[in-house]
Parts: sequence; structure tokens; C-alpha cells
Amino acid sequence: MAPWNGLSAPEMQLLQTTFWSAGGSRHGMAERLGFSRSKANALIAGLLDQGLLAEAGPRASSGGRRAEHLRLHDGLGVLVGIDVGATSVDVAILQPDLTVLAHHQEAADVRQGPGVVLARVRAIMRELLLGQGIAAAQVLGIGMGVPGPVNFEAGQLVNPPLMPGWDSFSIRDYLREDYAAPVFVDNDVNLMALGELWRLQRQLSNFLVIKVGTGIGCGIVCHGEVYRGAAGSAGDVGHICVDQDGPCCHCGNVGCVEAMAAGPAIVRMAMAAAEAGESPMLAEHLRLHGRIEAVDVGQASRAGDAAANSIIQRAGTHIGQMLASVVNFFNPSHVFIGGGITHIGPLFLAAVRQSVYQRSLALSTRHLEIQYAPLGEQGGVIGAGVLAMHESLKVRGVAP
Amino acid sequence: MAPWNGLSAPEMQLLQTTFWSAGGSRHGMAERLGFSRSKANALIAGLLDQGLLAEAGPRASSGGRRAEHLRLHDGLGVLVGIDVGATSVDVAILQPDLTVLAHHQEAADVRQGPGVVLARVRAIMRELLLGQGIAAAQVLGIGMGVPGPVNFEAGQLVNPPLMPGWDSFSIRDYLREDYAAPVFVDNDVNLMALGELWRLQRQLSNFLVIKVGTGIGCGIVCHGEVYRGAAGSAGDVGHICVDQDGPCCHCGNVGCVEAMAAGPAIVRMAMAAAEAGESPMLAEHLRLHGRIEAVDVGQASRAGDAAANSIIQRAGTHIGQMLASVVNFFNPSHVFIGGGITHIGPLFLAAVRQSVYQRSLALSTRHLEIQYAPLGEQGGVIGAGVLAMHESLKVRGVAP
Repeated sequence: MAPWNGLSAPEMQLLQTTFWSAGGSRHGMAERLGFSRSKANALIAGLLDQGLLAEAGPRASSGGRRAEHLRLHDGLGVLVGIDVGATSVDVAILQPDLTVLAHHQEAADVRQGPGVVLARVRAIMRELLLGQGIAAAQVLGIGMGVPGPVNFEAGQLVNPPLMPGWDSFSIRDYLREDYAAPVFVDNDVNLMALGELWRLQRQLSNFLVIKVGTGIGCGIVCHGEVYRGAAGSAGDVGHICVDQDGPCCHCGNVGCVEAMAAGPAIVRMAMAAAEAGESPMLAEHLRLHGRIEAVDVGQASRAGDAAANSIIQRAGTHIGQMLASVVNFFNPSHVFIGGGITHIGPLFLAAVRQSVYQRSLALSTRHLEIQYAPLGEQGGVIGAGVLAMHESLKVRGVAP
Repeated sequence: MAPWNGLSAPEMQLLQTTFWSAGGSRHGMAERLGFSRSKANALIAGLLDQGLLAEAGPRASSGGRRAEHLRLHDGLGVLVGIDVGATSVDVAILQPDLTVLAHHQEAADVRQGPGVVLARVRAIMRELLLGQGIAAAQVLGIGMGVPGPVNFEAGQLVNPPLMPGWDSFSIRDYLREDYAAPVFVDNDVNLMALGELWRLQRQLSNFLVIKVGTGIGCGIVCHGEVYRGAAGSAGDVGHICVDQDGPCCHCGNVGCVEAMAAGPAIVRMAMAAAEAGESPMLAEHLRLHGRIEAVDVGQASRAGDAAANSIIQRAGTHIGQMLASVVNFFNPSHVFIGGGITHIGPLFLAAVRQSVYQRSLALSTRHLEIQYAPLGEQGGVIGAGVLAMHESLKVRGVAP
């Protein structure tokens, strides 16, 4: 039973608006909803009484004046945000205002299939909730991001190239066994985009989030909403061709940006440089650890290794070439880059920018900002928390 | 004074819905607007009485039953739709339900600047209205498409690469001298997309219209609305790179799809084939007429000329390569191709399709349809008419 069961439509609108304008003012909310001040104040007073809203921010010191800023009440319950990556799993317990109460990350291999990975996710959820002294019944909603195309209505992956065993597996049904709360599943990059949209309090309408990790994907915000495409595969930019003479990709084509600039491609280039004697630093790392990871290339680059710099430059240029096409087509105001690549350092971002500004049209780039995603490492679980809260508020409890 | 000045908000909603669901039923409209049947019928009766709506379609033969289908009343006035291309001008007079009353097309050179081109547009408008016996005061709204990036709010072109003389020229003020009706200006391909959206009665939410003529542009419909981008330059796909070793483009980059596959590129390839003796048919045409146009290449192709076929195949493949990137990113349900290229025949479309299906991901193309734009040659003026009617209904006359 959601705590907002039985509320009126205007009351639900107020909860939704409070969620999307974290710490928003009474006045601003009334304006956004087109309510008069007195109507908004009456509704707010009722929701404060019922323990659904709470006052936030500094209270005026004198005279007991009521606080102007509002947030969802902690007592509503908690959200669970899950981010399943190709090589890791993140689980977080969040308050309704998306404050992270607990967060656990560990390595995982998505190719082991849903049985193995989701059993681990379930165990982590249980441990985190136990650690916070929170009962299963207190969970308001569960959101999960997965690294493949999702049928959003069904909560299932559809033909995921990196994780064939997950095709059509009902994640929702699996997690429903332990929790009464609704479960929502979306593509991981769509959730990063949703998270940034929440962080921005919806004040940007048209932007992109590019995730560069094992693969490359793009979350799209268009007209102020996450855009999923006609078949749910929008943002699948990893297989855009950036070099007709490039290497073969697992998708069957050649020169895909993913095959030339994602994590595994960077590692491949680094191994080659180490073995060819082009980089004493990477060669030493390989000798000591038996392998090189993308972050090691970043470290070598920061220490002045020329070969590492050249590898990062090359990867950034290829991603910039792909982005140039996308920017010409979509004309976003911002491009936020997230995923493992953000640990590789500032040279990568500089190379991406240079490549986009050189290849895109002046009108499209005049006001374009390209930066690392502000939510950083927590972008995935926060986005999953936003999905859980937003969809829960949408589907449940509205009085007719 | 618009004929709907002073109407209530629900009445305006009914007019708007009637416009967007040409020939729609009373029942369907009530449902779409969330009105009860009796409320809808009362509003409709009032609008019929005032001569704003008219009954449409077959009336039940027996018993004088009232007609179920509705349209905007012809007596409301007319719309003017103008499509300024790089090398032509189209002007049409349309009824409020977008029936074309008169249409004139003639060659023009947009590089002559707004003074010359718009004087001609104004003259054609006057002639067409005169021919139909329609007074200037009867014009409800004027819509115009132009082949460059537009600041939609200001009704001006912004840094248009093909038409520098038009930069920041106020088309709206110029046309206001003759008509009291509001003037709306947008990019030509955005209007083609708007026109198809109207034809489809908004039943597709996410599709693209690609125009291939002197340049290459793309109109985007996203979440059921035309998407213009953060700076109004969305859909500028002509300068997406399809060959890093390709020819120089006027934009300063190399391998832009526009430089390799638009009208002028096709003509250039045809001239080269004629001069190199690779195509007896094109050589003969060049000898007789002193020049070759893209349609002539289509004609030679249909007559079996191998060189012409190869040119068309090459252009279609390049456009398909660009589209493959766009389809991976946007995952549209449909891609409609319009512009002068549609006269070149079916081989072009086949080459585009083959190239997209080969390079895009299976999930993005499984249900993707690529076809010539159904509105065809009239797409530009119909889209301009939709803009004029839609925006006029939006900006004017709603009672508070």
C-alpha cells in the first residue's frame, strides 16, 4: 500500500512537483502548477499534517515564520536504485529526496546471466536494508538500469548484444518475490539521463548523456522527457561508423566507434603499445600486473607517457567524430559524458571537444557544452532511484 | 480579427482537434478531449451555428441523421503556404482543411536575396488570391518554409549557409505590410515533417523526413511534436561525414554527405561520366542541352544506362550511410524521403534501404519503414499551411 493511496489529483501533483524541484519553494510550486497561493498553501498544510511532505532548508530565525522550502518526507519509505553494468553491480538505498543512505558496488559479469547476477543483487539489497534497519515493507519502489535495449512496458531486455542470456527474462517478476513495491527497468544510459534531468530540476529540455565503458551508449532528453525511440533502442550510438577502413566489430560491421574507442579498445591499444616498446610505463605495468586497464592508461598519461597520451587522444577523437554527427542531427544544449572513461582524465575530454567543434556546424556548437556528467559515479543508482520514485508516483494512489 | 476571437478554451480545443483530425468523428473528438458526449455535442452545435465548423463526409441517407464527421468551415478564410527552396518558389492558397485551391511554382534563385525573392512571392500571392476572388482580409494565416536554420520565435533565418543575404532579415515584417494575418516562418524540412504529422493525424510519434535537393536536411518528429533543437538547427544532417577521404565541402570539412550525394554532386558525377565516355546516353544529353540535371540521370537509369545506375546507387548508399547513424541514434518508426531526389526513381530508394539495413542495428530496423514522403511535391506548401493554421489557432482568440 503506497502511503499516498487515496490522495486527490492536485495533492499528487504537489508531491510530484516537490520531487522534481528538490528543495523548491512553496511559491515556485504554486506557480508551476497554476494553483493560487492560498490553494497551494492549504494543500501543502494537509500534506505536512499527513507526514508526506516535510519542510526543508533554513527556517527564518525570528518569529517562527514557516519554512519556504519543501521536500518529500523521509518517513514515506525508501527507494532502491540498482545499476547493472557489463562488469559491475551497484545497489543503493535512497531517501525519497534521493539522499543516498547506503551504497554498495562490486565487480560482476553480466554474461553469467540473470540467475547469478540478480541473486547477488537481491542479497546486496537485503544486506543494505538490514544495515539501515529498514523492513522490506518500507520499500516504496525499485528501479534498475541494465546495459542493453529494454522493452520499458514489459520491464525486459530485448535482444541484448552484450548479455544474450537476459533476453526476455522478467526482472520484474524475479524481484517481486521479495518486495511488494513496484519494479521498473530501463536502459542504464536512459537512467543516467533521467538522473541528470532530475538534478537539473528539468531546467534543460534537450541534452544527451554519453556513457563510455565496455560499450558506448547515449541517453536522450528531448522536449524535457527521456526519449526511448520507436522500439526502445534510441541512443544506440556505439555502432555508428567512424572509419570505413576500421577494425571489425562484434556487430558484424567495421569501424564502429565502440570497437575503436570504448574501454576494451583502449586496453587493446595500450597492450599493443606496451608490447611494441612504445611505452616504458605501460610495459612496466604489464610486467608487474600481467594486464592493463583503461585507468592505467589514464595514470600513465598524467605521468607524461607519450604513447598513453596518443591512445587517449585517438579514443577521444573517434568519440568526438561520432558525437559530431549526433550533434548536427540533434542540436543539444549539453552533452554529459559518464561511465568508466571519466577516470581517464581531462585529456580525453579535450580531445572529444576538439573533434566535435571541428566537425559540427557552427550554429550547433556555438552554445554547446560538453562536460563530464555532474552526478558522476552515482549517476546510475540515482537515475534508477528517480525512475522508481517518478513511476511509483505516476502509477499508484491517484484518487479518481 | 480572427473569426474565432472570443471563443472559450474548450471551443478552441475543439477547433484545434478538428483541424488535426481532418474528417474526424464527433465521438472520436469528444474522447480525445476528455469531454462527455453531451458536452461535445453542445459545443459542436454552437460552432456549427457560428459557421466555424462544417459537417463532412456522407450523411446517413435515411431519417435526416446528423453527420458524424466534422471539418473546419471553408468560410473561415484561407491560408497561404509558401515554400522557398534554393532554386524554386512554391505558393499555395489553401482552405482551412488544407484543400489546395491554387498552387503556383516557378524557378527562383534564393541567393538573389530576400528583396528579389520575397517581392516575387508577394506578387504570386496577390495573383493567386485575385484568381480565386479572395480579399486580403480573408487570409487567416501565412506560413513560409525556407532552406536554412530559423529562429522560430523571431521568424528570421540565422547564419544560413546557402543564403547569406537573408541573415536576420525580418520576413514577418515584410509580409505584414500587405496582410493583417499572422506570419510564421520555419525551416523547410521542419514544415515537411509538420505536414506529414498532420497527414498522419498525429498517429505516429517518432519519425523523420529527409529532404534531398540542392542540400540535405532532416525534419524530426519526437514525442509527437516537431523538434527544432536547442538553437533551432536540429536536423542539419547534410554535413555528417560519410567518407574521411571524401571531397571538400563548402562548410570547410571533407566527406560531408551533402557534398557526395545531393543534387549538385549527382550532376557532377553525371557530367564526369558523360565526358569520360562512360555513358553514351548522358553524353548525348549533354551534347543536345549543354547541361545535365539530376532528373536526366534518373531518366537514363530507367532506360538502362549502367553509368547512371551506378551514380544513383552511389548517392543512395552515401545517404543510407548517414541515415544509418541517425537511425541508430534516434530509432524512428518511419523515414520519409522528399525533395527533388524523389524524381530520380526507385533505384535510389532501394540503395538507401540496403545501406541502412546493412549498417544499422537489427532492433532499430526491424520495424523501420523507409519510403518516399506521401505528400510528395505538395509537402512544402501543405506543411506551411499546417504551420499557419496551427499557430494561428494557438496564438489568437482564446478567451481567458
